[in-house]
Amino acid sequence: MYMMDQLYEAVACRGPVCVGLDTAAEYIPPKERRDVSPAEAVLAYNRVLVDHTKDIAACYKVQIAYYEALGRSGLTAYAQTLRYIREQGSLVIGDVKRGDIADTAAQYARAHFEGDFAVDFVTLSPYMGMDSLEPWLVYADRTGKGAFVLLRTSNPGMRDFEYQELKIGGRLYEAVGERLALAMTQRSGVHGYGAFGAVVGCTDPAEASAIRERWDRLFFLIPGYGAQGGTAQDAALLFRKANGGVVNASRSILKAWTRIPGLDPQGVDKVAAAQAARDTVIQMRDALCAALQDREPAEVS
Amino acid sequence: MYMMDQLYEAVACRGPVCVGLDTAAEYIPPKERRDVSPAEAVLAYNRVLVDHTKDIAACYKVQIAYYEALGRSGLTAYAQTLRYIREQGSLVIGDVKRGDIADTAAQYARAHFEGDFAVDFVTLSPYMGMDSLEPWLVYADRTGKGAFVLLRTSNPGMRDFEYQELKIGGRLYEAVGERLALAMTQRSGVHGYGAFGAVVGCTDPAEASAIRERWDRLFFLIPGYGAQGGTAQDAALLFRKANGGVVNASRSILKAWTRIPGLDPQGVDKVAAAQAARDTVIQMRDALCAALQDREPAEVS
Repeated sequence: MYMMDQLYEAVACRGPVCVGLDTAAEYIPPKERRDVSPAEAVLAYNRVLVDHTKDIAACYKVQIAYYEALGRSGLTAYAQTLRYIREQGSLVIGDVKRGDIADTAAQYARAHFEGDFAVDFVTLSPYMGMDSLEPWLVYADRTGKGAFVLLRTSNPGMRDFEYQELKIGGRLYEAVGERLALAMTQRSGVHGYGAFGAVVGCTDPAEASAIRERWDRLFFLIPGYGAQGGTAQDAALLFRKANGGVVNASRSILKAWTRIPGLDPQGVDKVAAAQAARDTVIQMRDALCAALQDREPAEVS
Repeated sequence: MYMMDQLYEAVACRGPVCVGLDTAAEYIPPKERRDVSPAEAVLAYNRVLVDHTKDIAACYKVQIAYYEALGRSGLTAYAQTLRYIREQGSLVIGDVKRGDIADTAAQYARAHFEGDFAVDFVTLSPYMGMDSLEPWLVYADRTGKGAFVLLRTSNPGMRDFEYQELKIGGRLYEAVGERLALAMTQRSGVHGYGAFGAVVGCTDPAEASAIRERWDRLFFLIPGYGAQGGTAQDAALLFRKANGGVVNASRSILKAWTRIPGLDPQGVDKVAAAQAARDTVIQMRDALCAALQDREPAEVS
């Protein structure tokens, strides 16, 4: 059984929200930042957020850049955050977007699938080619671990290269999708999805539908919801095939406390912030499920 | 003045060798691995290698994957290696190949241009587009720091995506080169090279010549020499325009001690290993300079 099967089941059970712990210190209530280092504040905040969301989140995505930015103490907070999530029985994606040649990729795979920084899934960048993914696939074959490969992101710059039309037909991201889907034909889980999935950002409805239909065996990690402008309707197009993806939100959850009506920002504590985060996750989950229901009849008819 | 100007001057002064500290514990003489942790052995070995090569190396490239693979203690060794190199007055490239959307890229830039993991140059992956490079360029504009963007690598998988022909003409890597060169028109250093350069692996002579001519304002980081099969002649084609690149070798230098004639592997210590590494760097530098001399008349005539 692949981790991707477990993620599918987590979505079926608890809904499609992936809570993004891209925890910048400035997203934490000021009261919780006093008298502790930024890394300590980040870890403590992550823990209380996990406590308050683990029953309603499909998984967590931890963006390592925010921890690397704090240096060695930040990476200690990263390691401890990962360990805490896994101890709670939740799945965790290390958003590391690594991509390097084979020997080096093998070192990265060891770094992020074993030891201090062990996660269930990573994110990977495909620029250097399929051989840069191979050492990670060894872990899929041996331990069931998974990855999400960058396909089509939703940042403006995605037009520069990902969206380039190729002479052989299709765009660059489509070539990545085809190669990835091919590599997954031998690595199909019990729910029909491959061990490795893809990162696909919210996009226009026609393209989202086409992407979902075309790679119907790839599970999607869908970023860009909330603070980055994606809506529940956008996202639902990408995961509507039975539980075929998780939708990530980070800042809108981490900073939910800033939207508490009438609140004194200096007075809010981490438990109140985590409760606001929980409310945001529930709203997001319900909006995604409602959007999914809206779409399903059209698809079936 | 950009760091890239300093690197140009280091090449003019000490030759084009970039010493790659992709230091896996198993590359270190067994004697030096006893009674210490792998991370401690790596740091001690790096230090003695730097001591023995700093007068003949243009710069150092430290591949972070090998350190991440050792977890938190490995990243401490990474930070201490970087600090040691800079204390010795040498330039250092953090081979991190990061690439992410703008907000996250800003965190990565902070991580690798400031604090524990501060380096003079990083390597970057362009898949997500030019906006993923922008936060790094802020540092070029403010502090002179530099980067090498993945262009055309020499691993077999580079044919999968980098080498794809685009409908607008040219291959994907050429589109990356064009965009990068454009971004450098406003960031040209005193020696004519842009603040950011490119990673270009050893390739066939015609293509290497074409790449060098086309992006004559981009300084190249040239991997693939030695253990990966590239020759001095291959590399010289890529840096022949006056000091236009550094050529990296890692394993052939780190493991030079394994080629000492008649040596007892169990008896060799780190000083003997560093002396063998030094000899290898000198041979490599001299071979590159000889190959460069061979080519120059043909270019001038």
